[in-house]
Amino acid sequence: MYTIIQSDKEKDTAAGIFPVRQSGKEKNKMKAYQEMDRTELEALRKELNQAYEEAKGMGLKLDMSRGKPSETQLNMTMPIMDVLGADSDLRTEGGVDCRNYGLMDGIPEAKALMGAMIGVPAENVIVCGNASLSLMYDAVSRSMTHGVCGSTPWCKLDKVKFLCPVPGYDRHFAITEHFGIEMIPIPMTADGPDMDMVEQYVNHDETVKGIWCVPKYSNPQGITYSDETVRRLAALAPAAEDFRIYWDNAYAIHHLYEDSQDELLEIFGECEKAGNPDMVYEFVSTSKVTFSGAGIAAVASSPKNLEFIKKSMTIQTIGYDKINQLRHVRYFKDINGLKAQMKKQADIIRPKFEAVLSILERELGGLGIATWIPPKGGYFISFDAMEGCAKQIVAKCKEAGVVMTGAGATYPYGKDPKDSNIRIAPSFPTPGEMAQAAELFTLCVKLVSVEKLLESK
Amino acid sequence: MYTIIQSDKEKDTAAGIFPVRQSGKEKNKMKAYQEMDRTELEALRKELNQAYEEAKGMGLKLDMSRGKPSETQLNMTMPIMDVLGADSDLRTEGGVDCRNYGLMDGIPEAKALMGAMIGVPAENVIVCGNASLSLMYDAVSRSMTHGVCGSTPWCKLDKVKFLCPVPGYDRHFAITEHFGIEMIPIPMTADGPDMDMVEQYVNHDETVKGIWCVPKYSNPQGITYSDETVRRLAALAPAAEDFRIYWDNAYAIHHLYEDSQDELLEIFGECEKAGNPDMVYEFVSTSKVTFSGAGIAAVASSPKNLEFIKKSMTIQTIGYDKINQLRHVRYFKDINGLKAQMKKQADIIRPKFEAVLSILERELGGLGIATWIPPKGGYFISFDAMEGCAKQIVAKCKEAGVVMTGAGATYPYGKDPKDSNIRIAPSFPTPGEMAQAAELFTLCVKLVSVEKLLESK
Repeated sequence: MYTIIQSDKEKDTAAGIFPVRQSGKEKNKMKAYQEMDRTELEALRKELNQAYEEAKGMGLKLDMSRGKPSETQLNMTMPIMDVLGADSDLRTEGGVDCRNYGLMDGIPEAKALMGAMIGVPAENVIVCGNASLSLMYDAVSRSMTHGVCGSTPWCKLDKVKFLCPVPGYDRHFAITEHFGIEMIPIPMTADGPDMDMVEQYVNHDETVKGIWCVPKYSNPQGITYSDETVRRLAALAPAAEDFRIYWDNAYAIHHLYEDSQDELLEIFGECEKAGNPDMVYEFVSTSKVTFSGAGIAAVASSPKNLEFIKKSMTIQTIGYDKINQLRHVRYFKDINGLKAQMKKQADIIRPKFEAVLSILERELGGLGIATWIPPKGGYFISFDAMEGCAKQIVAKCKEAGVVMTGAGATYPYGKDPKDSNIRIAPSFPTPGEMAQAAELFTLCVKLVSVEKLLESK
Repeated sequence: MYTIIQSDKEKDTAAGIFPVRQSGKEKNKMKAYQEMDRTELEALRKELNQAYEEAKGMGLKLDMSRGKPSETQLNMTMPIMDVLGADSDLRTEGGVDCRNYGLMDGIPEAKALMGAMIGVPAENVIVCGNASLSLMYDAVSRSMTHGVCGSTPWCKLDKVKFLCPVPGYDRHFAITEHFGIEMIPIPMTADGPDMDMVEQYVNHDETVKGIWCVPKYSNPQGITYSDETVRRLAALAPAAEDFRIYWDNAYAIHHLYEDSQDELLEIFGECEKAGNPDMVYEFVSTSKVTFSGAGIAAVASSPKNLEFIKKSMTIQTIGYDKINQLRHVRYFKDINGLKAQMKKQADIIRPKFEAVLSILERELGGLGIATWIPPKGGYFISFDAMEGCAKQIVAKCKEAGVVMTGAGATYPYGKDPKDSNIRIAPSFPTPGEMAQAAELFTLCVKLVSVEKLLESK
């Protein structure tokens, strides 16, 4: 039974609509926890507690907290280190010396490459340093001090709000919180953010200046926005002239399977059609394509937006690291190089996702105490425990040596109103460590759930 | 005669105090222009005009506008491209994998290296991306939105002012102008900024929040602040708690001569002694040590300031490019590696400076129409023409194919009240080009000066 997350109240949110793994329910001899009486639950608690104490004695030290590539992934990319050497010509095709100042907005070849990742022409792309997060921070910071294409600087306004599809990416929320921007949670559905709510806010509240989106293989749910969602976003009629969609296409080509991939409608084309050519800033990077510490990042937008961005950027820097841009271009050559790389990445990551999913299934399937979404790409598995359990689960994991993303991190201000969502990041540990961590995690889920159910008996 | 720049009014500014090259005056058969009568000047104008028309016909295409390293310099640094390869261990000494996320504030080895460049302990240093300019921009931008260590954000204040020693660096002034900060020019003396004025402003006007300084081999004059100037700066008693010295130590180790180098007093130590431990942000980079497009940059400050900076930085980025930090560390090893590199750089640059200086001397010495300062380091020669001539000189140069830094660029808002200062950047052209450019430049100086003198006759 999935009462908690399949309640009517939840019907139109992601948790209720998804093909959450419930299989095993029939096969599994385990009784759903909610059907157990007090005596059964108490016996179970004793048993689980014993297992937990044993687990604690194992001295685990594992981290499932952040979407970090593993050493195997990083090793796979090492040939990029030999692409440029002391004998290389470090000039662009157009003859610009990448070692020197110049080309503030990136080398043309890198613009084309990053554009290809997201289906956007090179001329709409600015290629920068190693972090798309900095570009998002800059976009918000710039709006605070200089407004958006001539609008009033946000720091001069009494109130600025951002819509935050939840669960979402903690570092997005950290940026808006840092600037004192009020965050409004928007529930995710299987098709992306609840568009009725988004339209209601954006089209009628001029203090709403932005929405954070991870439109493909979203963080943490792995949801790809449906074509209809993208079209409705593109067709918004914002009350605020300086409203922008912050389109963090972090997992644009980060598929887990070759034969089953999500497609995301290219949003600039839709915006153009809808008469909103300037409504989107798109962000992309190679952090999870090459090296997460030393990739390249880009921002894409309309000519009008780019011109405004460059006005600040030209004050902010003489130029980004073009040698690293060139290194990436020479390594990948084109989109096919990127795709081949991502296939290799998937081959390393996929087994870890599958290990976690199979342990979740085996240990929790049919117990009625949790749901999760098997993703087709991205870096995370979104897990929903029973209401009021997430913090305790994460604390129990930590006590036994397994670090999870903090409960609540997927919500603005770190506050998950249901204390239910936990983000699992399977990429970093080895498959063996991953299995150990997942086992411990499911044990903690069971233990905390039993305690919760006993409380309410 | 140097009436224009040696007038009483100018007595305590750099132009009046410096050992400006006046030699040749005796030897030179050329008569000082100011001593010529109208007929002589008209004959001279005709002659110069003819030479200028011939020069225009040469189709020159030269750039003396920006402090860019030359190809020879960049080639000299190419071995750095082989320091890290596919077989390298990309871990720090402490075992951190530079390919992955982590160490937001830089790898310890890079902190030590950058700290050594400026005589500051590693723990006071944050190492970032490729541009110290971005760090300065961030410092100002952060103060606008978040204040300084708890002070009111500047965007909430009616008025914010910065002191700008002049002539100075145009990109500094561009940052403060971009944020609407009022800039107050402070004349440079041979010892640094006019400290009486600085004290007057900083200690009595709480809207003065900063001063831009290039304390060593200053841009453009090549002046190194005297010990007394550093001590007086360190001993300021600012009216504003959020006043900071923006100490851009861009040319910390950029000497032209091995046997004649300026020494700059380390300012943090002086601040500590004076009871002002938190008053300085120091910036440094390897832009003109390795590759100007792909070096590493750092900010140094007190623990309190660093803590505040990191609060924003941790929102802004997950981390900077640590592989490039490691590449620099492995290439240089320590301060001796840096010094050896800078000796090689100097060997390439010095002849260009000397070529310009000797042409200035040969062509303009004794004419009483200009002064300039022979620097011992840095990237520029500061040139002062007769009042009201700089713009025309730069325009004339451009017309004949030689691009100079825009006249006025060395002053806030691009406005040199005397229209006199021109920044010469000798590093980029080849020595041959440099000589050609300098010849044309001096021709334009003479022509415009004659025209000016004729106007006033």
